[in-house]
Amino acid sequence: MVVARSKPPAESSLLGRLSRLSGEQGSETISRRLLSLESILTKDLARVEAALSEVVTPEHIAGQSASQLLSLSGKRLRPLCVALAARTGAGFNSAALNIGVAVELVHSATLLHDDVVDVGTTRRNQPCARLLYGNAAAIFGGDWLLVAALRRVIASGLPGAVEEVLDVIEKMIEAEAMQLEARGSLDFDINNYMRIIEGKTAVLFHWAMGAGARSGEQTDDAVQALENYGRNLGLAFQIVDDTLDLTGEAAVTGKALFTDLREGKMTYPLIVGAQRDKGLVANLEEVSANDAADELPLDLRHSILDSLIKSGAVETSMAFARDLSDQARKSLSVLPPSAARTALELVAEEALHRKS
Amino acid sequence: MVVARSKPPAESSLLGRLSRLSGEQGSETISRRLLSLESILTKDLARVEAALSEVVTPEHIAGQSASQLLSLSGKRLRPLCVALAARTGAGFNSAALNIGVAVELVHSATLLHDDVVDVGTTRRNQPCARLLYGNAAAIFGGDWLLVAALRRVIASGLPGAVEEVLDVIEKMIEAEAMQLEARGSLDFDINNYMRIIEGKTAVLFHWAMGAGARSGEQTDDAVQALENYGRNLGLAFQIVDDTLDLTGEAAVTGKALFTDLREGKMTYPLIVGAQRDKGLVANLEEVSANDAADELPLDLRHSILDSLIKSGAVETSMAFARDLSDQARKSLSVLPPSAARTALELVAEEALHRKS
Repeated sequence: MVVARSKPPAESSLLGRLSRLSGEQGSETISRRLLSLESILTKDLARVEAALSEVVTPEHIAGQSASQLLSLSGKRLRPLCVALAARTGAGFNSAALNIGVAVELVHSATLLHDDVVDVGTTRRNQPCARLLYGNAAAIFGGDWLLVAALRRVIASGLPGAVEEVLDVIEKMIEAEAMQLEARGSLDFDINNYMRIIEGKTAVLFHWAMGAGARSGEQTDDAVQALENYGRNLGLAFQIVDDTLDLTGEAAVTGKALFTDLREGKMTYPLIVGAQRDKGLVANLEEVSANDAADELPLDLRHSILDSLIKSGAVETSMAFARDLSDQARKSLSVLPPSAARTALELVAEEALHRKS
Repeated sequence: MVVARSKPPAESSLLGRLSRLSGEQGSETISRRLLSLESILTKDLARVEAALSEVVTPEHIAGQSASQLLSLSGKRLRPLCVALAARTGAGFNSAALNIGVAVELVHSATLLHDDVVDVGTTRRNQPCARLLYGNAAAIFGGDWLLVAALRRVIASGLPGAVEEVLDVIEKMIEAEAMQLEARGSLDFDINNYMRIIEGKTAVLFHWAMGAGARSGEQTDDAVQALENYGRNLGLAFQIVDDTLDLTGEAAVTGKALFTDLREGKMTYPLIVGAQRDKGLVANLEEVSANDAADELPLDLRHSILDSLIKSGAVETSMAFARDLSDQARKSLSVLPPSAARTALELVAEEALHRKS
């Protein structure tokens, strides 16, 4: 399939899965609809890509750093969710396109600032913007993407959407600030962790689904159901992300592994593991004493991973993610059956099985 | 005079001058009006301070870094200008208050990010936020102030104001990016310099005056006149700022001196001086070779200052600032005489004589 004007998004695995699973569906109608939805979504995402490529003008170094990040073609999971939310209703119209683009831009802005804050080096298997263009360019690049995002939210014409997205951005900043303050602290409990990932990830997914649904002129009940879906999907997604940081393969995730730990961030599997295995706590203390810039010794990494697996912390984390993914899917039950609803169910399932 | 709920702004010198100059005015009416304006403006600025203190919630480290900067009580020159622009019309109503607060917040957000980018250490005679709370907190603090600023612009209810302020912020970012790219380059001409200070300083003053005037329900002609005033005042202000960085006293400016030079920024007096004195060029090359973090040797500083004074570069810079200040004052001629107009003329005059 030829996608006009821009590269196909990396998460075409999801679209592929859509078409494969269309064969496994009980209902022939849904099966046919899923097949047709796959080609429709590919076009929706191509429109998002085209709009994103219009946003970036690499005339100055801030634009270049923003452009580099956007050109790496991430999963585009957020715009995909917005498109599907809109398609449960009246369709992926220009309001929904604007929301989809805005959500990806807000997400990208936070990535640029996060990489500066976390002294990150790799993003989507490439050197990250701050390494190529410097911290200053990445800071201004993030500011610049935020401005571009807000313009798109205004362009959507959705009543109250600018105020809402400002609330979302504020909550994201507060979560980042909480994470910053907790850095390096080992006595960090599940409640703190949940508050952080709620703000860091879930609020944007929550808003994206609601705004997408309202763009598609959905009913209030449907909007609320899709918001609940977004929140739970976001939480599940982040827990899988945090688990992959420990158990994944760097070449597949596109990021260095054990990054959270090196940055002093206690994530779900680490918190659970530390509650169950005192040996892990000792190892984590050793990591704390390590210089954040240094690679962790291989035997220390192996020992930590061993504790996480043997204590069942990895399994518990994935079970929790599955539970959240189930809640996401269940919240869709108020919607009438449709290809878009089935696709959202697949997205929630896919979030658990992804490798990157 | 007791100011309720918050500290009086630092630039009370301007208010003092207003009352002193009220005695020197030819017209008794204007003189009486200026005296009464002084007490009115003090109340306007107290409302701005109260609103600013409501913005900051130091519940997290990003808020703390923003709060620290705001509590340092800068000149509040921008809100003062907004109040005066509104008072040339229907008065300092709640729309104008929101614009005044928003402008100070945008300005403060850029200061937080600039201090990170420039590795700044002192701001308003105090250690700057990034030193106290870290770079990360200052980055998120800046993001957070930007969100607060946009909320205030929305609250003003001025049609199109959000779109306008996004354009302003984008131009500010572009100017910062240009400045970043030019860093350390000695063959930097006046045109480049003017483009940078236009974006860095003038566009925000331009917008602030126009939005203030529209809040005060001014005519289109008056809005345009006040915008021109704002632009020229901003340019004059920045040129004086850049000259004070070389000729001022650190204890008075509240910032370390020769900062621009150490950061590789060629400012107006340096560009003019380098055109006239080859000895200065050699000295500037020596500065370029110096580590930015190190204090410049005293004899090198003396030699540079000597070149700038003897070549007449300082005088030329101040003459240019005076010319821009004159243009600012002249653009007010379309407004009917009023205490607010006279006060704005004094502000333009004061911009030339300030020491900090």
